[in-house]
Amino acid sequence: MPHTDPLSGVFAPVLTPFTPRLAPDRTLFVRFCHWLIGQGVGLAVFGTNSEANSLSVEEKLDLLAALLDAGIAPERLMPGTGACAIPDAVRLSSAAARAGTAAALMLPPFYYKGVSEDGVFAYYADVIERVGNQRFRICLYHIPHLSGVAITRTLIARLIARYPKTVVGIKDSGGDFANTRAMLDEFPGFRVFCGSETFLTETLAHGGAGCISAAANVNPAAILQAFLHAGDSATPTRQTGLNAVRKALEQAPMIASLKRCVAHYGQAPGFARPRPPLIQLDDDAWARVSAALDQADFSMPGLAAALSSNS
Amino acid sequence: MPHTDPLSGVFAPVLTPFTPRLAPDRTLFVRFCHWLIGQGVGLAVFGTNSEANSLSVEEKLDLLAALLDAGIAPERLMPGTGACAIPDAVRLSSAAARAGTAAALMLPPFYYKGVSEDGVFAYYADVIERVGNQRFRICLYHIPHLSGVAITRTLIARLIARYPKTVVGIKDSGGDFANTRAMLDEFPGFRVFCGSETFLTETLAHGGAGCISAAANVNPAAILQAFLHAGDSATPTRQTGLNAVRKALEQAPMIASLKRCVAHYGQAPGFARPRPPLIQLDDDAWARVSAALDQADFSMPGLAAALSSNS
Repeated sequence: MPHTDPLSGVFAPVLTPFTPRLAPDRTLFVRFCHWLIGQGVGLAVFGTNSEANSLSVEEKLDLLAALLDAGIAPERLMPGTGACAIPDAVRLSSAAARAGTAAALMLPPFYYKGVSEDGVFAYYADVIERVGNQRFRICLYHIPHLSGVAITRTLIARLIARYPKTVVGIKDSGGDFANTRAMLDEFPGFRVFCGSETFLTETLAHGGAGCISAAANVNPAAILQAFLHAGDSATPTRQTGLNAVRKALEQAPMIASLKRCVAHYGQAPGFARPRPPLIQLDDDAWARVSAALDQADFSMPGLAAALSSNS
Repeated sequence: MPHTDPLSGVFAPVLTPFTPRLAPDRTLFVRFCHWLIGQGVGLAVFGTNSEANSLSVEEKLDLLAALLDAGIAPERLMPGTGACAIPDAVRLSSAAARAGTAAALMLPPFYYKGVSEDGVFAYYADVIERVGNQRFRICLYHIPHLSGVAITRTLIARLIARYPKTVVGIKDSGGDFANTRAMLDEFPGFRVFCGSETFLTETLAHGGAGCISAAANVNPAAILQAFLHAGDSATPTRQTGLNAVRKALEQAPMIASLKRCVAHYGQAPGFARPRPPLIQLDDDAWARVSAALDQADFSMPGLAAALSSNS
């Protein structure tokens, strides 16, 4: 690890493989996580791209235990622990804190829309008090187009004021760099991660902590290089390369596209399978994505060996 | 029961009371359910107004067991069992089917937005296959402003064609009677419930099954009368009365307003307490709602006695 703050760098919101019966595929998941760690990125397991909300609490606790059992360092983990129900968020967050993970990435409760800032504050406060662990650290998760509940800067200010050692960062998946930049300006020392590597150069130029990005599942090494060498003369070229891969992947629904990509390069066809309501990318769509990836000189070195290894 | 089809009539999406520590208040919940049953309405427990998505699966299973233990007839229950994660929906739906409830009211998975109809179909199909119980019956739940995932008529047609004995109805909380009417016209025999009593007269005039409405928590007898005598000469007057109460309640956020209303008329102050991200209605807002309810000659007969009874 060339950077020393565990709450910085590049994190992959790790894709979750499923068996033909649609149970989480523990073995394939652990192998894929080992490959990602080998590529130098951290593991934001149980994120949006992980289909985390399509998993039960028990399934997530089981997968977290599998990673720890497999010897993955907890400080490389940033598990998603937000949930609509406080008891679920508390169970997951407590497990994350006990394990010594870098932080928990926490969605706000996302069923009700138009809820008050007081209500969202009360939710986070209640989870923090119930977890009651000094080691518990939260990276907030702003993704309003899916959660329907924005993490506003006034909310962040209130949470930092009340829980300065717990609420330490945010992932901004809002897609508006002006908001990312405003958070960086307003909250010095707060770790701000962009939610897409397309904003990596700008985010780092303004003091951001790194990125937590879908594409880090398939393009981790290149994104890490862009992070490590940000600001040098090759930065614009690197950013252009990242954008080309991103654009290729985005020619189809992102999660299905990423899963098919791992299935293809990892020679693990079953990896392409999502849980409903997501559906597997069809051959035509994959042909489009694949052609665009080839144009971008894309590869996933060592993935097939990693996914087939006898551990 | 003056009507014989258990899948018709008026259902209350039952409010969930919480203890000061924010655990579900089992005792108060059962007492409130007894009062509602006494008023002649069925119990759509674990709906939007129940803060169902703020409860863990275990909490919902426990509350369902409490109702059955208390002798409430399962055919008067329509528990909400939809969840983002299929394993959660299967556990709840299996419990609902085993208990012999009238139906399960099933939200689509609601985290991802813009999902395909194929994906939503696959979700319902997978839950139905896993539950694997001939007695399992589903009432779909269309509430796109909160779920972000519409139950379209083409989806309904596919589900009815594949599972004619399981997918038997829908609650339409979309707020657009043209859609309710189109479903009634297109699917004869399918039970269509309006999601607000403001549409009750129109819904019944076009062959609808009844209504599942927030206001049935506090105004059950009047809504039931409107259902039972729909089409007679007093129907417009009754509908006007229902609308006046609804309008009073809507002067503040609905769930908080309803909880404060039960707390007031039931002399059970703790009933007003929601779980975050919802917050308790403040005194000023309640004063507005209360004044409007008084104007509408509103009361909740027998509630205080029911909530304080030694069972």
